[in-house]
Amino acid sequence: MEEKTDKSTGVLYLIGLGLSTEQDITVRGLQVVKRCKHVYLEGYTSILGVEKSKLEEFYGREVELMDREAVESNSDEMLLAARTAEVAFLVVGDVYGATTHTDIALRAKEMGIRVEVIHNASIMNACGACGLQLYNFGQTVSLCFWTESWQPDSYIDKILLNKRNGMHTLCLLDIKVKEQSEENLIRGRKIFEPPRFMTVNQALEQLEQIVRRREDVRDVLDLRSTCVGLARVGQETQCIASGPLEELKSFDFGPPLHSLIIPAEMHPLEIDMLRSFNVKQ
Amino acid sequence: MEEKTDKSTGVLYLIGLGLSTEQDITVRGLQVVKRCKHVYLEGYTSILGVEKSKLEEFYGREVELMDREAVESNSDEMLLAARTAEVAFLVVGDVYGATTHTDIALRAKEMGIRVEVIHNASIMNACGACGLQLYNFGQTVSLCFWTESWQPDSYIDKILLNKRNGMHTLCLLDIKVKEQSEENLIRGRKIFEPPRFMTVNQALEQLEQIVRRREDVRDVLDLRSTCVGLARVGQETQCIASGPLEELKSFDFGPPLHSLIIPAEMHPLEIDMLRSFNVKQ
Repeated sequence: MEEKTDKSTGVLYLIGLGLSTEQDITVRGLQVVKRCKHVYLEGYTSILGVEKSKLEEFYGREVELMDREAVESNSDEMLLAARTAEVAFLVVGDVYGATTHTDIALRAKEMGIRVEVIHNASIMNACGACGLQLYNFGQTVSLCFWTESWQPDSYIDKILLNKRNGMHTLCLLDIKVKEQSEENLIRGRKIFEPPRFMTVNQALEQLEQIVRRREDVRDVLDLRSTCVGLARVGQETQCIASGPLEELKSFDFGPPLHSLIIPAEMHPLEIDMLRSFNVKQ
Repeated sequence: MEEKTDKSTGVLYLIGLGLSTEQDITVRGLQVVKRCKHVYLEGYTSILGVEKSKLEEFYGREVELMDREAVESNSDEMLLAARTAEVAFLVVGDVYGATTHTDIALRAKEMGIRVEVIHNASIMNACGACGLQLYNFGQTVSLCFWTESWQPDSYIDKILLNKRNGMHTLCLLDIKVKEQSEENLIRGRKIFEPPRFMTVNQALEQLEQIVRRREDVRDVLDLRSTCVGLARVGQETQCIASGPLEELKSFDFGPPLHSLIIPAEMHPLEIDMLRSFNVKQ
C-alpha cells in the first residue's frame, strides 16, 4: 500500500541529483533542498561532475558529505533528525540505485518517518544514450578491482546468460573512495588512499583475461566482440565509443566515471545508432 | 566517438521531463526550454500528471503537442528548424525510452545537427521505488490491449526467461492515444477514440488467462505468484501494492499510468521493502 504517514512532523527526502552538475537536480528537488534543515550527500557509490562546494553555493545550504562509514554507522543521526525536521539525503543519479539507499528508506519507514522520493536520471536509464534500447537490457553486473590474489569473475556468467538470450549487459565499474591500505587497516590508522575509479580499459582487460582463461565463454564472447564504453554520461564531456574488445581496450575515455556495455544481438536501429560512436570513424 | 558537431548553428535538445509535474524538469532543462525558439512535446508514449497548458505557463513558451502521426510524419519540420535555431523536443520520462526518439536523434545527427540530451528519471529506473533492486531486472516487456481476435502473449516467454534466471520483469502497459476505430480508419474519418491506458488489473487478467491456457508456464508463474502494481510513480498520489496475482487483480490503483512488475526470487532486503507495500496490510 502507500507510504506510511504518521504523527512525526519531519520528512526524509531522498533526492536524486542526476549525473552531471548542480544544475541537474529537478526544479522540485531544488525547492525542497533549499528549505531542508539538514542536507546530506551520499558520496561513495557515485560522483557528480562538480565539487560539494558548488552544490552548497547553489543550494544556499551546508551539505554534509557521507562516506560509506558515515552512511553505515551514522545514518541514525540523519533519521533522528528527520523525525522532527525536513531532511534531504542527496544521491548522485537516482535514489534507488544502491541497496544502501533502500535500506535507509526502509529504516525510516519503520521509524514512522514520512519518506518522499524525488527521482532523477541514473546510469541505469541514461546509458540508453548509446542507442541500445533500454528494454533489451538484462541484469546489471558490477566489476570490482582485481588484486593479485582476488580476481572474482562470476559476473561473466551473468553477461553470458544475458547475451545468449538477446539481452545487453550494463557493467558498473568499481569505485574506491576513502579506502585504507591493508597495512593502515590492520594498524587502525585512518589514512586513506586516493580515490580510484575503474576505467573502461581496466574492465576490458579483465574481460580479456577471462576470455583467455575460460574456453567455455568463447562461443559468446571473444576479443572481436563489440563492446561499448561510456564515460561521464550526461555531462558536457560525455564520451561514448564502441568497437571490438581488443581495439576499444586502448581507447582513451578520459576522466571518470566510466561504464561498459556488452551488447547482445542488435536491432538495425541499434546498429545504426551505435555506428555513430564507432572508434574507427 | 563523440556526438558530431558541424557548422549548423542550431541545436536539437532532447529533454526528459521526468514523471510527474512541470516541476520535474531539471534546472538545466528548464533554462534550455525557456530560451528555445520551438518547443515540441512528444505525447503518445507516456503522459505527465499535468496538462500541456501548465507546461506552457511554466516555460513561458508555446508547446506543440506531437502525437504519433506528427512524430512519424512531421518530425522533418522539427529537424529543419533545428538546423538554424535552438529546438527542444520534450519527452515524458527520459529521452531514450522509445525507439522513436533514438530514430529522431539519429536522423538529426545524420543531418549534421548538434544533438544534446538532458536526461531525467523514467519508469525504467524509478520503478526501483518498490524496493526491488534495479540491477536484478531482466529485459522489459510491453503488454498491449487484447481484442477478441488478437491476443498476443509472446511476452510471457520473456517473463519466464527472466524469472527462471532470477531476474525481475518490468511490464510496460499499453497506451492508446488518438487511436481510430477500425470503421473510422477504413472510412478515413479523423475521429479519435478517447485515450485508453491499460490498468494493472487488465494486465493481470491477461496473465491469468495465459496461466490458464498454457500449462508450460505454471512451474514458474501461477495465480499465487507475487506481483507488484505501480501507479503514477514519482507523483504525489503514487500507489504501489504487491500481492498474489489473484488478489492484486482486484486492487484499485486509481488513475493512469500503471506498470506491473513480476518479481523473480527476491533478496531479504527486497522482501522487507516489498512487504511494506503488501495489499493485505
